[in-house]
Amino acid sequence: MSMHAQAPLPWRERPSGESGPLWRDERNPIIPRDLLPRSNSIFNSAVVPFEGAYAGVFRVDDRTRTMAIHAGRSADGVAWEIDEAAIVFVPGDARVPEIQQRFVHAYDPRVTWLEDRYYVTWCNSYNGHGPTIGVGWTIDFRQFTQLDNAFLPFNRNGVLFPRPIGGAYGMLSRPSDDGHTPFGDIYYSESPDLLHWGRHRHVMAPIPWTWQSTKVGAGPTPIETPEGWLLLYHGVLTSCNGFVYSMGVALLDLEEPWKVVARSNDYLLSPQRPYEQVGDVQNVVFPCAALTEGDRISVYYGAADTVTCLAHGRITDLIDFARGR
Amino acid sequence: MSMHAQAPLPWRERPSGESGPLWRDERNPIIPRDLLPRSNSIFNSAVVPFEGAYAGVFRVDDRTRTMAIHAGRSADGVAWEIDEAAIVFVPGDARVPEIQQRFVHAYDPRVTWLEDRYYVTWCNSYNGHGPTIGVGWTIDFRQFTQLDNAFLPFNRNGVLFPRPIGGAYGMLSRPSDDGHTPFGDIYYSESPDLLHWGRHRHVMAPIPWTWQSTKVGAGPTPIETPEGWLLLYHGVLTSCNGFVYSMGVALLDLEEPWKVVARSNDYLLSPQRPYEQVGDVQNVVFPCAALTEGDRISVYYGAADTVTCLAHGRITDLIDFARGR
Amino acid sequence: MSMHAQAPLPWRERPSGESGPLWRDERNPIIPRDLLPRSNSIFNSAVVPFEGAYAGVFRVDDRTRTMAIHAGRSADGVAWEIDEAAIVFVPGDARVPEIQQRFVHAYDPRVTWLEDRYYVTWCNSYNGHGPTIGVGWTIDFRQFTQLDNAFLPFNRNGVLFPRPIGGAYGMLSRPSDDGHTPFGDIYYSESPDLLHWGRHRHVMAPIPWTWQSTKVGAGPTPIETPEGWLLLYHGVLTSCNGFVYSMGVALLDLEEPWKVVARSNDYLLSPQRPYEQVGDVQNVVFPCAALTEGDRISVYYGAADTVTCLAHGRITDLIDFARGR
Amino acid sequence: MSMHAQAPLPWRERPSGESGPLWRDERNPIIPRDLLPRSNSIFNSAVVPFEGAYAGVFRVDDRTRTMAIHAGRSADGVAWEIDEAAIVFVPGDARVPEIQQRFVHAYDPRVTWLEDRYYVTWCNSYNGHGPTIGVGWTIDFRQFTQLDNAFLPFNRNGVLFPRPIGGAYGMLSRPSDDGHTPFGDIYYSESPDLLHWGRHRHVMAPIPWTWQSTKVGAGPTPIETPEGWLLLYHGVLTSCNGFVYSMGVALLDLEEPWKVVARSNDYLLSPQRPYEQVGDVQNVVFPCAALTEGDRISVYYGAADTVTCLAHGRITDLIDFARGR
Amino acid sequence: MSMHAQAPLPWRERPSGESGPLWRDERNPIIPRDLLPRSNSIFNSAVVPFEGAYAGVFRVDDRTRTMAIHAGRSADGVAWEIDEAAIVFVPGDARVPEIQQRFVHAYDPRVTWLEDRYYVTWCNSYNGHGPTIGVGWTIDFRQFTQLDNAFLPFNRNGVLFPRPIGGAYGMLSRPSDDGHTPFGDIYYSESPDLLHWGRHRHVMAPIPWTWQSTKVGAGPTPIETPEGWLLLYHGVLTSCNGFVYSMGVALLDLEEPWKVVARSNDYLLSPQRPYEQVGDVQNVVFPCAALTEGDRISVYYGAADTVTCLAHGRITDLIDFARGR
Amino acid sequence: MSMHAQAPLPWRERPSGESGPLWRDERNPIIPRDLLPRSNSIFNSAVVPFEGAYAGVFRVDDRTRTMAIHAGRSADGVAWEIDEAAIVFVPGDARVPEIQQRFVHAYDPRVTWLEDRYYVTWCNSYNGHGPTIGVGWTIDFRQFTQLDNAFLPFNRNGVLFPRPIGGAYGMLSRPSDDGHTPFGDIYYSESPDLLHWGRHRHVMAPIPWTWQSTKVGAGPTPIETPEGWLLLYHGVLTSCNGFVYSMGVALLDLEEPWKVVARSNDYLLSPQRPYEQVGDVQNVVFPCAALTEGDRISVYYGAADTVTCLAHGRITDLIDFARGR
Repeated sequence: MSMHAQAPLPWRERPSGESGPLWRDERNPIIPRDLLPRSNSIFNSAVVPFEGAYAGVFRVDDRTRTMAIHAGRSADGVAWEIDEAAIVFVPGDARVPEIQQRFVHAYDPRVTWLEDRYYVTWCNSYNGHGPTIGVGWTIDFRQFTQLDNAFLPFNRNGVLFPRPIGGAYGMLSRPSDDGHTPFGDIYYSESPDLLHWGRHRHVMAPIPWTWQSTKVGAGPTPIETPEGWLLLYHGVLTSCNGFVYSMGVALLDLEEPWKVVARSNDYLLSPQRPYEQVGDVQNVVFPCAALTEGDRISVYYGAADTVTCLAHGRITDLIDFARGR
Repeated sequence: MSMHAQAPLPWRERPSGESGPLWRDERNPIIPRDLLPRSNSIFNSAVVPFEGAYAGVFRVDDRTRTMAIHAGRSADGVAWEIDEAAIVFVPGDARVPEIQQRFVHAYDPRVTWLEDRYYVTWCNSYNGHGPTIGVGWTIDFRQFTQLDNAFLPFNRNGVLFPRPIGGAYGMLSRPSDDGHTPFGDIYYSESPDLLHWGRHRHVMAPIPWTWQSTKVGAGPTPIETPEGWLLLYHGVLTSCNGFVYSMGVALLDLEEPWKVVARSNDYLLSPQRPYEQVGDVQNVVFPCAALTEGDRISVYYGAADTVTCLAHGRITDLIDFARGR
Repeated sequence: MSMHAQAPLPWRERPSGESGPLWRDERNPIIPRDLLPRSNSIFNSAVVPFEGAYAGVFRVDDRTRTMAIHAGRSADGVAWEIDEAAIVFVPGDARVPEIQQRFVHAYDPRVTWLEDRYYVTWCNSYNGHGPTIGVGWTIDFRQFTQLDNAFLPFNRNGVLFPRPIGGAYGMLSRPSDDGHTPFGDIYYSESPDLLHWGRHRHVMAPIPWTWQSTKVGAGPTPIETPEGWLLLYHGVLTSCNGFVYSMGVALLDLEEPWKVVARSNDYLLSPQRPYEQVGDVQNVVFPCAALTEGDRISVYYGAADTVTCLAHGRITDLIDFARGR
Repeated sequence: MSMHAQAPLPWRERPSGESGPLWRDERNPIIPRDLLPRSNSIFNSAVVPFEGAYAGVFRVDDRTRTMAIHAGRSADGVAWEIDEAAIVFVPGDARVPEIQQRFVHAYDPRVTWLEDRYYVTWCNSYNGHGPTIGVGWTIDFRQFTQLDNAFLPFNRNGVLFPRPIGGAYGMLSRPSDDGHTPFGDIYYSESPDLLHWGRHRHVMAPIPWTWQSTKVGAGPTPIETPEGWLLLYHGVLTSCNGFVYSMGVALLDLEEPWKVVARSNDYLLSPQRPYEQVGDVQNVVFPCAALTEGDRISVYYGAADTVTCLAHGRITDLIDFARGR
Repeated sequence: MSMHAQAPLPWRERPSGESGPLWRDERNPIIPRDLLPRSNSIFNSAVVPFEGAYAGVFRVDDRTRTMAIHAGRSADGVAWEIDEAAIVFVPGDARVPEIQQRFVHAYDPRVTWLEDRYYVTWCNSYNGHGPTIGVGWTIDFRQFTQLDNAFLPFNRNGVLFPRPIGGAYGMLSRPSDDGHTPFGDIYYSESPDLLHWGRHRHVMAPIPWTWQSTKVGAGPTPIETPEGWLLLYHGVLTSCNGFVYSMGVALLDLEEPWKVVARSNDYLLSPQRPYEQVGDVQNVVFPCAALTEGDRISVYYGAADTVTCLAHGRITDLIDFARGR
Repeated sequence: MSMHAQAPLPWRERPSGESGPLWRDERNPIIPRDLLPRSNSIFNSAVVPFEGAYAGVFRVDDRTRTMAIHAGRSADGVAWEIDEAAIVFVPGDARVPEIQQRFVHAYDPRVTWLEDRYYVTWCNSYNGHGPTIGVGWTIDFRQFTQLDNAFLPFNRNGVLFPRPIGGAYGMLSRPSDDGHTPFGDIYYSESPDLLHWGRHRHVMAPIPWTWQSTKVGAGPTPIETPEGWLLLYHGVLTSCNGFVYSMGVALLDLEEPWKVVARSNDYLLSPQRPYEQVGDVQNVVFPCAALTEGDRISVYYGAADTVTCLAHGRITDLIDFARGR
């Protein structure tokens, strides 16, 4: 069986009364904040098909509020066993230990099957020098190997494309600053070797006076469709009482992914349920992974920076929504 | 039947256990956030008696988070039909189109019956140049005519008096800045023609170390009573986790409305119910309209910048409360 | 009967499913926000054994949002009778009236039995000149006498030790600024007479990237144990949507209390229940008092700056937790 | 002799080495900061022809740093006698005293001959409620009469046009906030009576990444030319060490002055001399008045918020410069 | 000869053209920034009569920009020999070493002869925990002894009175925050032993819209006169391009020095000379010491945080100026 | 003659009275702000030996305050001819035009001879998306070719090493934010092709409480010496009146240049002359280029963001200074 043969999607049909292209799972939150003995919260988590079941890398903040990423496995994508210990990365080459001296603060992982392995990207505070994009890989979700960081600080929300494009690996990311960044655009970068990155291109900016007016950041690994790369992303509005994180959808050009083919005006999902509105950070919906099966799609998203949730829809509907149809 | 003959108030008697001068309707929120197919939230809404029933102008933020005002009608003031399309204003004269070129961001409307028609005032982002007070009118809540803006930016919470005072039209407003204004006093202005405004007078300022320490702004159209104009208003406190909007009451001099006759020390209502505490903006109670019938009064207020609610009381009690009796 | 003979603790055994060293009382919140006719909120309250029952000093914000401290009594520590009128302090000497001219804003009291009376310390805005530490005493929780303020502004969270140490009275406090202070360390100060203070020593600082990264402040009166002074304290993290207040525990040296013997990495309790997450200030757990009986301990804490709650545990567990055992 | 018959301009020919359209007077600063016994600074001053000589209204900050406006007279426009006492305005009607109760902080005056008298506009802190545009008039620069304020706070840099346009009086102003406003556009407003104002129209905005990127404000009374109203104005750039105020020029449409006919990309004058770079506020060039004689123009400007200076040029050159010719 | 027998004042008569109560020395700056081989700047310096000549303690920032205090001696008060090495304090008792572990950042000293020795107070960053008031003493300006810090952080500008008042030692200080404090009032505190301090009383606040609107801080040791303690102090205004520090004068009650008898509206001296306007911090005049001889007074002040200057006047004139005569 | 055969250094011997390792040229500023007809300022300029004379790339801000880089030539390094037109870059490959669509804001260039050509790096606002490091090259200082940008925004002060190290090209840069960045560390990055960059390593951070406490950034191209790469750099301190830019020196390891071998505690040069203290940005000394001849070194630096200056010294002295000898 292929490494990423897939179990059935953790699918739910559209409930009556739901008219939008994405609907919440009634089992939400599927992962509670205290699943682990010392976990404060488990959210912003990356799930992929793995050996006929599912595996994932999870953001787990412990009760010291240290941010770390943990591996986990699930038969059905809903009930999860998450390792109590954070992932310890093996250096991928002799120079990687230089960036591992004080390994702290790994968060908001994404996982992408690329060529022959699962690549993990995450927000990585290299030796405490501010967030940048960590890169690693695994075959088995037990041993993880770390490569060099992709970019200079300050960067967040690095997401790999699942295949080379125009002969180069591609990554989306959001240049940031060293705090609760009040700005942020999505960029595309290319690499010949997953080690050196260049050809940085601007992809999309916030749109004033909308749910995505403060900053935007890529969510799950882009999904290849005949009409373009389907990108689920988060957008942030600043209310007088703080940030509001919602989810939107765009289509990027298949060959030049820094060109936006379509982009929804409306959000797909905004914080409207108590578990999205109340928690360690109020009013957060933050997608980090998506599973697909045919036209079906199940999206994992963090809620209120506290718990992990699921929403479901159909890819063709999302494309229509991105196109404003 | 007069245009503003009135249906029965959407009244509720004081529930047992409520001792304050204003009590919430148990049907709250009476308008849910998703009443319209694309509405994100419906709040800060202005309701008036209309043809034996009720009509209103409603702040509707859609799922792009565009702010717009929509007309609506209701037989009982509780169950509302709100137009899916935002109000499109007809220019009131040849020069009004100059301020309509990029009509965006209309919010927080008030409606006042003045002489022979319903005037609408709202927070209007004239061609994107920051908020000021838009002015328009309607006879039938179907066709709306726009006049010129009342003031220079930046201004919010413009509310007309329901009759000329001392030979001039009167309006309350709150000069602001171009963001989430952290200050704000109520002023009174006069006009001979609803087009040019002057004789600006300071009415009331925030009071340090109280629920109204950051800013204050007029709410519903002032209500004429023998003891003065009864003004319901919002006051804002800045906690370490953001703004808290509460409701208070004052009495203004009948002939010189910029003179405060009485003003409550205590708030009338502060955010204490989940629908007021949790939503797109936490901890907001924001009154925009009031209906009266004899001594009874029903107040419409926005809650958490998300939904529309009702509270009820008696005018004489409110006067006593304003006077600290 | 001694003045502080003790009624039974308001104890609750550990509920099943709770594994931490401190667990919440299922009766929470034990004091609702509207216990008094004009109270907006009752929280951050100090309780002590008193004449075979319990007495306390309570932070009560009224509906003007004036902050004041009120006395209260309870037979069981759960059901409270709180005076409707705020405490009016009698000057302790001829010069105290100089600091009482405009007595406003008293909040966050602590009560400590020291030698022969109950001392009250609180955050006191002396004549409006910013917060500092007010000091007073009572024998009967009916008449209260005020001494001079302990320190210059700006200071908050002053807590007395229950006996002299090295021949001097000891107090913990947190130097602050004049707003919603975004920093704050705990200091120890000494006094020969409870009037003049010196020998200020730094005790503990925030710890970056944890639940206590923004500021820390002493909570209840330190509890003497063979292993050191047991200090429950609050720590604050700044999320992108505001402050989050949690509770932690440390051990201070018995003879040199400015030396930290042990300090927990993890929080004891963070805002995870609706009454801690939603209210006038979201996400606040703030301990101000603790009762003990043998190894048992019951902690009073304010929740969401709105209500008063209880949590229970065992002292030896707290010591172990502080030591990371 | 007409009231505004004119003495010779305080003219200087272009010095060799100066190539720009405006050159500084070698007598700069023509008014020193300590011309009056208690003056801290004299700057941002408005000069007009008067009875065959010159008169003016001057911003004088005294050594308390109270901002006030004083009248002055000069035979040649260079050597000035300025009244030691600030102007005391006589109320223009029965309601003006309402805005004069606590008359403080008058600054940055402009003077305009309109129909039959000299109108003075200035930045006026009506009863301490933040800056707005004060309006008054004089015939003789000895007695001054005050009208009502033109606008609601917060506003600065109000400048009248020297004749009615389209049947209405016209004024430029810059809506502001209550501090050192970090934004600011120029607007045009109309009045039938110099008392009530409306028909507010946006005229010009800052231009990003230029010397006028932070804010712009009208300078001297606009000068009528066949090609439009010649408007000298100030523009502000925010460097990492503060604001830099420079002078620019634009042409406004003669009949619809809110339409910009031409506007210079380059500044006319920026702070490059020690008296412009060093003083109470570093790096300020701020024009408030201009005298013309045929094609000649002499501009009065404040330097470093400390002294008053002169620069000279030709109107046709300024028009060319505005048009980028 | 008494330890503080005095050499002739470094006096200068009033130059013609100077009309104010204080005039600058034409030898300014009397101490250049680079008097020492590694000095970046020498300013905010405290000078006293010493053994028939003068001695002082000087703020010297070296070229690392480390702030330290150095001792110096001068025959005439103008030509100074300053020690190249910073003062190393001997602990005054066994517990002082606890606050000396990481001795860094000593600045803005004052020196006061009190009873039998010269006391030095300075802004002292105890172990890096933010500024507070360091206290020490010397007999010979060679050996210096350190006592415990007077107050908790954050505090600056601590100045001792030259004799006990009402049986207690007195000190003025300005509670601050941990940065470039944008607020600050002067307080008076009492001590029985120069070790413990209490009875803190507010003395004077900034005055809005004046040269002293942002903060005020005591300057030289108060000078006893029949009309009260003569206090020279600095006041700060915040312009749109930063702080402006000026000098003013007040009279405090002889027996209750927290009561202000008189206070000048106007500044005595503001930054108007290039050496006060240009330097490491623009626009600073900051007095730290004064010498008197009969009615004559010579004031030492720091200029532009870079050099040390002198100004002269007469005490009776300063009293008149404080009284507004 | 080799392309970079060198003319005599623009050398000056140490003047008497100068004791530091670097002394200013008495001809300063060598390039005035108005050398070009429309130049506002010429500073932060990069000079290299070229064809027996000197060539350079200069930051020229015009009077619109547009920032651009211009080429220039000089026989002696002191008298410069600078092109009136800004450099227009020819795209280096087919994809470079994607980043040239709206070419605006090029500033702070450095020039490095690397292998066979002169590489230019500069701060480049790619299509207005915030600053990053532009890369180009020239042979003749007439035609310039642009490569792709090195990094994602936000970045400034990119400086190439003059030879490959460990088989890779090396560049220093300072990750920044989108404004007047109040932080900034120096990083080292590697590239196989000058197009893709990786292996980012932290080099040096600001040092609290010194002249380099806010941010640091590389200056001229590092100079290879037997003891390491000699790096001149700028460091910034934030005073209460703004940033102060000074110059320092460090030694980086020859083979692993991200390792700091030595670093001066003291600054080499801080703003102490009027042309460094007064100008468009006060208090700026900013080195961008250095010429060497044997042990001699001449450093070009921008002063007050307004003019270009020269300072001279000896390399061995700078090494000693870096080592604190």
